[in-house]
Amino acid sequence: MRAVMQAAIVGGGVIGGGWAARFLLNGWTVRVYDPDPESQRKINEVLDNARRSLPSLYDTSMPPEGELIFCETIKQAVEGAHFIQESVPERLSVKVDVFAEIQQHAPDTAVIASSTSGFKPSELSEGALRPEQILVCHPFNPVYLLPLVEIVPSSQTSEAIKQRSKELMTQIGMYPLMVRKEIDGHINDRLQEALWREALWLVNDGVATTEEIDDSVRFGCGLRWAQMGTFQTFWLAGGEGGMRHFLAQFGPSLKWPWTKLMDVPDLTDELIDTISDQCDDQANGKTPREMERIRDDNLVGMIRALKKNNWGAGETMNQHDQRMRSEPADLSQLVQTSHRQVPQSWTDYNGHMNETHYLEVFSVATDEFMQFIGAGPDYIASGLSYFTVETHIRHLDEVKAGEQIKVMTQVLDGAGKKLHLFHRLETEDGRVAATGEHMLIHVSLETRAACPPDESVGKTLRDIASAHVSLGKPDGSGRAIGVKG
Amino acid sequence: MRAVMQAAIVGGGVIGGGWAARFLLNGWTVRVYDPDPESQRKINEVLDNARRSLPSLYDTSMPPEGELIFCETIKQAVEGAHFIQESVPERLSVKVDVFAEIQQHAPDTAVIASSTSGFKPSELSEGALRPEQILVCHPFNPVYLLPLVEIVPSSQTSEAIKQRSKELMTQIGMYPLMVRKEIDGHINDRLQEALWREALWLVNDGVATTEEIDDSVRFGCGLRWAQMGTFQTFWLAGGEGGMRHFLAQFGPSLKWPWTKLMDVPDLTDELIDTISDQCDDQANGKTPREMERIRDDNLVGMIRALKKNNWGAGETMNQHDQRMRSEPADLSQLVQTSHRQVPQSWTDYNGHMNETHYLEVFSVATDEFMQFIGAGPDYIASGLSYFTVETHIRHLDEVKAGEQIKVMTQVLDGAGKKLHLFHRLETEDGRVAATGEHMLIHVSLETRAACPPDESVGKTLRDIASAHVSLGKPDGSGRAIGVKG
Repeated sequence: MRAVMQAAIVGGGVIGGGWAARFLLNGWTVRVYDPDPESQRKINEVLDNARRSLPSLYDTSMPPEGELIFCETIKQAVEGAHFIQESVPERLSVKVDVFAEIQQHAPDTAVIASSTSGFKPSELSEGALRPEQILVCHPFNPVYLLPLVEIVPSSQTSEAIKQRSKELMTQIGMYPLMVRKEIDGHINDRLQEALWREALWLVNDGVATTEEIDDSVRFGCGLRWAQMGTFQTFWLAGGEGGMRHFLAQFGPSLKWPWTKLMDVPDLTDELIDTISDQCDDQANGKTPREMERIRDDNLVGMIRALKKNNWGAGETMNQHDQRMRSEPADLSQLVQTSHRQVPQSWTDYNGHMNETHYLEVFSVATDEFMQFIGAGPDYIASGLSYFTVETHIRHLDEVKAGEQIKVMTQVLDGAGKKLHLFHRLETEDGRVAATGEHMLIHVSLETRAACPPDESVGKTLRDIASAHVSLGKPDGSGRAIGVKG
Repeated sequence: MRAVMQAAIVGGGVIGGGWAARFLLNGWTVRVYDPDPESQRKINEVLDNARRSLPSLYDTSMPPEGELIFCETIKQAVEGAHFIQESVPERLSVKVDVFAEIQQHAPDTAVIASSTSGFKPSELSEGALRPEQILVCHPFNPVYLLPLVEIVPSSQTSEAIKQRSKELMTQIGMYPLMVRKEIDGHINDRLQEALWREALWLVNDGVATTEEIDDSVRFGCGLRWAQMGTFQTFWLAGGEGGMRHFLAQFGPSLKWPWTKLMDVPDLTDELIDTISDQCDDQANGKTPREMERIRDDNLVGMIRALKKNNWGAGETMNQHDQRMRSEPADLSQLVQTSHRQVPQSWTDYNGHMNETHYLEVFSVATDEFMQFIGAGPDYIASGLSYFTVETHIRHLDEVKAGEQIKVMTQVLDGAGKKLHLFHRLETEDGRVAATGEHMLIHVSLETRAACPPDESVGKTLRDIASAHVSLGKPDGSGRAIGVKG
């Protein structure tokens, strides 16, 4: 148990709201200051989106949601805070004033960070009371899902604050990218801006519509960039010769007229109309709210796919799963082997969790149980494992997307090569929605044949099995389909 | 059955090989001409990658692989071809000569397309025998996975050839983007080039390493771009105000120094060394071959995630699944309800297909069976469906990634509200690797309670069930776990 951490969000809106959601869902107390009377509504909307998507990224339950407090003053928001995130409008004088007020009341050990895209930390901390406390933590929308945060210190930012911001960003599941030198637009916005300016030219010159440009990205390079970025993609294009070969081959094209970026198009009324109208058409009648949910479901799905390969954003999520994981105190009782939220993508045309994911949950629960008895990744790497030979699932009730579910596991037999498990899938309100009965056999991964577990695993398992006898034979175990048991 | 289609690949290498693989795996005969003595090896390497990944995108079996023929001359390659794809080195005079030779021997109804990034179709077809036959079909690496193909006609390209190229590209599972105006770099390479030039500046100026830049892309904007592109992403950032609001807010930043794209860095030896060395470090000892497989597995995983939401590249794959789907001729015999290749991502730490995906295969097979009996999407939309209440899986043998598997389905009971199915999961070499026994109950999606199916579905099901009685009670049905049956 660690002490409750406290974040102050100064400036709500989409970005501030995204920050609030990320801190809250990671168990922090969040105090928000925003003079906009609409800010409570806006933040709650962002929170709704975050609640349905962020926990879906993980295969572990997130900590209990923290407390959200709306404050009347900056003072109330920042007193006692460990992390203060400023997301007020992009005007330097406004930001400088806000920082001055924050520093009057904030602990001097707190990180004070700005979400700014437009200003460098040295500009923000000019004339500040304690410039060493200030840096930029630049997030990406949706802040509650995208792991990237660019941490940009000024030359005055202290080492302690840099380290602390990196640690705390990691603690809330983000991927902190420490930026070496401050520069306008930091790193990522510069790349986006370059692409954006070229895209504006293409529309301006009637070469393509906004939809055609978006399609060229999402059916092509976007899928590459989501996992490897631009350098690694081109490194691969260089084959055995790597980047050197690629640069020799494509270096000359730097002199070709492949972008119009020597110039920037004028945002005339006509161009604004063209772009805005085309973008509205693209949405095809969907509201921003609907599109946000589609975006979030896609992000969750793609990041979950990357988790499988422990790659890129997926690796970040796997690491956060490990941080949130806990071992059971007492294996002699029913063992909690899973606790998680049901992702949107797990539902099917019947509007409930698809049968496949019941087995996914049970399978992951079995893996977790194996870890508890000492048959985890190291054991498997040593060449021993369990294979499932038989599974019996009873669906007793429906489960919907967004529900919290857990699995309680009973050992029915653990003698010799056998591992006979009985999982109960329970909902938050205590319904048993399904049971999974599984027979596993211990095997050698070399011979692919059955063999006894090692002594330690065997003993642990026998001990649990004999303790679990006292829990009784579970209702519905040992049954065949279509036969009342 | 449609006639076998024939493609000619002129110029092998990574791009030509990718084209060859895509045509072959979609059942086309492919004739390759490339004077490079290494070309057979190179194309076979690309084919190996494609065979393990492209079929994994689909939930339907692809057609039997076509025949691959290496030719000694352009004449041999292009005679009788329906589609001719040129991927020779990026030198205009070479390309023009190749097109002249192709047109001497090719049918005048064939599409003659170039993979060029660097040249406009009008340049390629200048002085050609039949300029109306020539256009650009610009693909993206890996050609066998990424759906985007930019189709760029010249002013002389005929309507028939434009239409034909669009149809044929769709037939091999691609997403044809018809480009309205020819322009250097077409659409997507211009966007990539803009981002690339900015990225080179960041390395050149010591702001970030290649890895940091790639991280800023793959943990941030890349995940957005993979699904929505740049305009739709920013449209969303505009909230209720849409793009007009976004442009009003961020229009001014077009005048800010957020990119260095008024200029291009010199590719000095020093900059080349820096970039190449950093990229090699990023690979962390992995070979290009290993990285290709990681990339492909990530692409397959992300695109499969997008399939679930029927979005972007995922929608393209779903449409291709529909094109490849076939209905069974005779429901009175065992019904083939699935035929597919096992994706890499379906394997687990035991090096075989994870138990979860056995149920996924069975679940999809059940859906397919429901479609066969008239309880498909339209029926479900009308408010009626089947819910699984009980499942019994026996794992009899291991299945590895890349194996072709099929499911043969027997109806054990179809009376009243019951649907009692028995699936056999068979491998290509005839092993029964698993069986799945499933009890489903017909329900009203409104009341969520059991109810009889409609008359037509009920009758079809009873007919199949009574025909299937003659197939006998399957081995392993009606069994409980741990009990010999």
